[in-house]
Amino acid sequence: MLEMFTDPKGVAVIGASTSPDKLGYQVLHNIIQYGYQGAIYPINPTAPEILGLRAYPTVLDCPDPVDLAVVLVPNKVVPTVMEQCGQRGLKGAVVITAGFREVGPQGRALEQQVLEICRRYGMRMIGPNVLGIIDTVCKLNASFAAGMPDRGRIAFMSQSGALCTSILDMAMGQGIGFSRFYSIGNKADINELDLIKAWAEDPETRAIMAYLEGITNGPEFIHSASQVTRHKPIIAIKSGTTNAGSKAVSSHTGTLAGSEAAYDAAFKQSGIIRAGSVQDLFDYARAFARQPLLRGDAVAIITNAGGPGIMASDAVEHAGLRLATLSAETKQLLQAKLPPAASMANPVDVLGDALADRYALAIEAVLADPNVDALMVVLTPQTMTQIPETAEALGRLSKAHDKPVFGAFMGEAAIRKGVEVLRSYDVPNYAVPERAVAAIAAMWRYRTWLNTPPLAVEELAVDRERVAQLFARVRAEGRVTIGDAEAREVLEAYGVPLPKAGLAATADEAVQLAESIGYPVVMKIASPDILHKSDIGGIKLNIMSAGEVRDAFDLLIYRGRRYMPDANIWGCQVQQMVKGGREVIIGVNRDPQFGPLLMFGLGGIYVEALKDVTFRVAPIDRRQATEMLSEIRAYKLLRGVRGEKPADQSAIVDTLLRISQLVTDFPEIVELDINPLMVFEQGRGAMGIDMRLALK
Amino acid sequence: MLEMFTDPKGVAVIGASTSPDKLGYQVLHNIIQYGYQGAIYPINPTAPEILGLRAYPTVLDCPDPVDLAVVLVPNKVVPTVMEQCGQRGLKGAVVITAGFREVGPQGRALEQQVLEICRRYGMRMIGPNVLGIIDTVCKLNASFAAGMPDRGRIAFMSQSGALCTSILDMAMGQGIGFSRFYSIGNKADINELDLIKAWAEDPETRAIMAYLEGITNGPEFIHSASQVTRHKPIIAIKSGTTNAGSKAVSSHTGTLAGSEAAYDAAFKQSGIIRAGSVQDLFDYARAFARQPLLRGDAVAIITNAGGPGIMASDAVEHAGLRLATLSAETKQLLQAKLPPAASMANPVDVLGDALADRYALAIEAVLADPNVDALMVVLTPQTMTQIPETAEALGRLSKAHDKPVFGAFMGEAAIRKGVEVLRSYDVPNYAVPERAVAAIAAMWRYRTWLNTPPLAVEELAVDRERVAQLFARVRAEGRVTIGDAEAREVLEAYGVPLPKAGLAATADEAVQLAESIGYPVVMKIASPDILHKSDIGGIKLNIMSAGEVRDAFDLLIYRGRRYMPDANIWGCQVQQMVKGGREVIIGVNRDPQFGPLLMFGLGGIYVEALKDVTFRVAPIDRRQATEMLSEIRAYKLLRGVRGEKPADQSAIVDTLLRISQLVTDFPEIVELDINPLMVFEQGRGAMGIDMRLALK
Repeated sequence: MLEMFTDPKGVAVIGASTSPDKLGYQVLHNIIQYGYQGAIYPINPTAPEILGLRAYPTVLDCPDPVDLAVVLVPNKVVPTVMEQCGQRGLKGAVVITAGFREVGPQGRALEQQVLEICRRYGMRMIGPNVLGIIDTVCKLNASFAAGMPDRGRIAFMSQSGALCTSILDMAMGQGIGFSRFYSIGNKADINELDLIKAWAEDPETRAIMAYLEGITNGPEFIHSASQVTRHKPIIAIKSGTTNAGSKAVSSHTGTLAGSEAAYDAAFKQSGIIRAGSVQDLFDYARAFARQPLLRGDAVAIITNAGGPGIMASDAVEHAGLRLATLSAETKQLLQAKLPPAASMANPVDVLGDALADRYALAIEAVLADPNVDALMVVLTPQTMTQIPETAEALGRLSKAHDKPVFGAFMGEAAIRKGVEVLRSYDVPNYAVPERAVAAIAAMWRYRTWLNTPPLAVEELAVDRERVAQLFARVRAEGRVTIGDAEAREVLEAYGVPLPKAGLAATADEAVQLAESIGYPVVMKIASPDILHKSDIGGIKLNIMSAGEVRDAFDLLIYRGRRYMPDANIWGCQVQQMVKGGREVIIGVNRDPQFGPLLMFGLGGIYVEALKDVTFRVAPIDRRQATEMLSEIRAYKLLRGVRGEKPADQSAIVDTLLRISQLVTDFPEIVELDINPLMVFEQGRGAMGIDMRLALK
Repeated sequence: MLEMFTDPKGVAVIGASTSPDKLGYQVLHNIIQYGYQGAIYPINPTAPEILGLRAYPTVLDCPDPVDLAVVLVPNKVVPTVMEQCGQRGLKGAVVITAGFREVGPQGRALEQQVLEICRRYGMRMIGPNVLGIIDTVCKLNASFAAGMPDRGRIAFMSQSGALCTSILDMAMGQGIGFSRFYSIGNKADINELDLIKAWAEDPETRAIMAYLEGITNGPEFIHSASQVTRHKPIIAIKSGTTNAGSKAVSSHTGTLAGSEAAYDAAFKQSGIIRAGSVQDLFDYARAFARQPLLRGDAVAIITNAGGPGIMASDAVEHAGLRLATLSAETKQLLQAKLPPAASMANPVDVLGDALADRYALAIEAVLADPNVDALMVVLTPQTMTQIPETAEALGRLSKAHDKPVFGAFMGEAAIRKGVEVLRSYDVPNYAVPERAVAAIAAMWRYRTWLNTPPLAVEELAVDRERVAQLFARVRAEGRVTIGDAEAREVLEAYGVPLPKAGLAATADEAVQLAESIGYPVVMKIASPDILHKSDIGGIKLNIMSAGEVRDAFDLLIYRGRRYMPDANIWGCQVQQMVKGGREVIIGVNRDPQFGPLLMFGLGGIYVEALKDVTFRVAPIDRRQATEMLSEIRAYKLLRGVRGEKPADQSAIVDTLLRISQLVTDFPEIVELDINPLMVFEQGRGAMGIDMRLALK
């Protein structure tokens, strides 16, 4: 739980200043002003007293109890004071000082030095380069923020200190409270995952919010975060998502993968709700912190205006939620009590002249309806509208039901009082229905996550040793890309079905092979140096006779030589011609942050043009592999359209699992494409037709 | 210009009331309170005086000048008072009274009666069933809204009166002004297009905003709106966009088309910017009303915080805009004047301790850079940040350059003063950078529209008469769907290339035909009643010999009979087997609102699974047809990927134009699919392989 930060008995402000325009003054002032109840020690080499408190020259001089330091001295001095903190037996430090890793190699060395001091003394550190931390539970505002947020049930961390100032200002303006509010800066010691784990156990925290620019340890992050999200939601912004696109990649998967795809996959696999902006972050967090989760995806709308009711319905459908179908009882009840011109179906239109009692009636009836999982109440401030009274009714009734309730009171001055009433009942209000719906959709995604079983990776029977030997051989030859025949061997060892094939060094051998495989055959140039064979005309399909085999052999070798005169050309691959399946792609690209990023999508020539692909960080389990299939737009094609039989989906799932296992077993595989994997009718399996593989 | 509403010399309030809780009182009160300078006449059968003004029993009794009536009497009485208005020579009426079309057939009849009175006397009417109209130029608030917005340069119309109350409240809270603000209700006389045309000429209006639920005349709307948007932006919400999906349709195009697709196409073709929510509507309108259009798509960002700078950059890239590359001169200038730790590239990071002068320096340099088309200034309220001063600098400098400038001052209380200063300089501020970027992107879409030439439909040489005769024949037989052979004839007449083919009534005839066409051939069941032949196995490909022709003939006839015993089966279509092209689809579905909706997309089995299609309302011109090609995700496939030759795009464009002309010439065509249209390599044309057509 990191109690040194959430419940310190005494705080030393190292670098406390007597000058009001210095951060060392402001931080001390914040600690005093906002009611921290423990001991407070200004540390200053010369001043005897600051802000009415006795000051000490060093932390070594101050009395007990002291277990947390807030450090504001110049960067060069930080190691010295941290050493003193360690000697004095402090448990934690918040290093506000900047000028470390973010300014270059020297700063990085300094940061490393500070970190080593922490490690030596078993001290935990937040920072360096932070705004500070705020804890509304122990009332410690150890930051230079301009204000103190309300106590609340959201714990927030930010990798940007400056963003904290905006978020605090917004939160205070909108009455949003926090339990903990940490600026985590360079994350030299305590990183996002440490906080996530700590806050998972924090009874004061109901939802975790984060602004992240990077993640310290990808695989560990997925592993731990996916456990935390089983009982507490995490909502995060990950910025810096667009790709510079500078990295040179040669595989299809490499072209399509990128840090954006990797983070998306990692967040999905961790059950983390991703927010697209600070506005979304707040919109979602308010919903999660204040309202119960919805049990199903059926949303009811009550409105006093047709137009906004339609907009709300549109938003519900666009978000992939359902408009609840009200029960016959509810409709009868509404019919009996609402004016005849009202709409009794969903959205329920209580009409423009609805007073609070009519709204209350509809809210009561709709919340009691078992067909309803969530309720949004839309209100426009018309002449007769009783705004605070309606808010009161909604708030009161929301407490009587275990269903989430959202306001979309639309306006500004006229609705302000109503919004305050809603807030007092923990009902979040949204300026437009579309934002309320986005929050509901985020909750529904989280609910769906809670319903999925935890990761259960299977161990499939494979010939791992054979692949290890092959890779050792390739490495011994100093190669990183490997040819078709070798890639075949790797996949064969991992149980991926392949067409009959062989390598022919001469035209005669090619004819022999073709005769033994049976016509028609496919021939491909065989070279570890030529990766995209089709680009250079290096593949001939539908070869029907010995004569054609000889012609093809000569042509392919000629083209290979012309394309790359010094390529190592082994001859031609002669392969059984496979027809009549659907082409999909399975690929892997190694992400610097998360490791092996597994891709599945519509294959063949479509893959790059349509970008109809989806990603997971390996290893994955059967459920996730199945999920991947259904995530591509072309899923319908796999299920069979217009009289065609469905494709063998379980064969794809099986191949995905085998590839997941392969790239987990062999971290040296940096790129892999099976494109196409030809998938036949249900029950008839799949076959890897063309493949490539690159090692580190 | 509809001067009877924008500049009435005298207003009669028919149904004015002495009772403050009646709308008839509130409207009169609004007219007086907000400073209307013309004559005001309360009309009330009994009261001698209301709110200090002399009242008259009927509008016939009141003196000159009087040219506008505001009507609030009960719905049954409306015809009577409108008749009097006509007799009295009034030019216009705003009918606030509800209880017309929206309540059923009787109300509809009443509305028709009122409309006829208007027509008879040449009076124009807004309504019925409205909140009223507000004109800030002549200071007329003829509505029961609770307040009066500022004067501004946005004209707004809403089909929902209740929504007006929310929008007014929001606008007043955010200091957004309007020139005209009309609730248009049932649109019995004056509809959205009348107002668009009037406001197009309105010197007080710089941008038109609309909330629409439906459009009165689709083709006329596209025609006129697309001219207005050439010189004034229109930003609209169209609600009710999701499809009930209840309509039974049999074509691919019908399945994919819907009112959402039609509105999207119509708005695109009209140059209308579509907003997804009231929030977007405001965000865009503020940008359009206050800032000049951007000349290019290069956006510069200046920030005092790294995190929000990254988020802003992400948003720019996601929106399809470009991050401006600052010129070498600008970078040098920044390098000379900013602290070394600042970032001189875009986004320019002036650092957390930037005072207003440093911001000003960066703003000045960036706005002067010819590589920059738009500027967004991000500000977080840090300890030293000078917020109003920075706003002042930004505002001042924005006036010195003809480039659009946007604020993303992030916060609430701390930034309020700064936002007010920005507003005084007409610089819109957005709570988060993502919203500013969305507004910039909307402006860029509009700029792109301004750069496209106006519609220029070509007249292609076709045999219209032949199609007219064929349709007459079909109608004479009482059919609505027509068979393959007939559809072929129609397309042939309009110059769409088709494979060689013929209809065989017997197996012998089929063999004869196949021999004359040359093997391989395709055979299809020929019946006007069997639409999706592949669904029932009604197509045989790759038939190589006379024996196979006979087998296929018997099989297809058998399947046709089994599928639909009472189908009218003509025999089999024998057709040249066409290979080696890309399959696309061209289709038409008739939209109830806009007429012939033309679809283009990836064809064959992919069309429904991938939904990779785009729409236009016919007729279209060559530029639009070309645009359609590039709008589908699979466009890359048409341009040629991975060593394949590009497809013959001009052949697709030509076919689109021919189909556009066909369905414009023959409104009786309600559905048409050419699927696939097989497109060959560049220069080799395209061929319609399978087609279907249904008449009204």
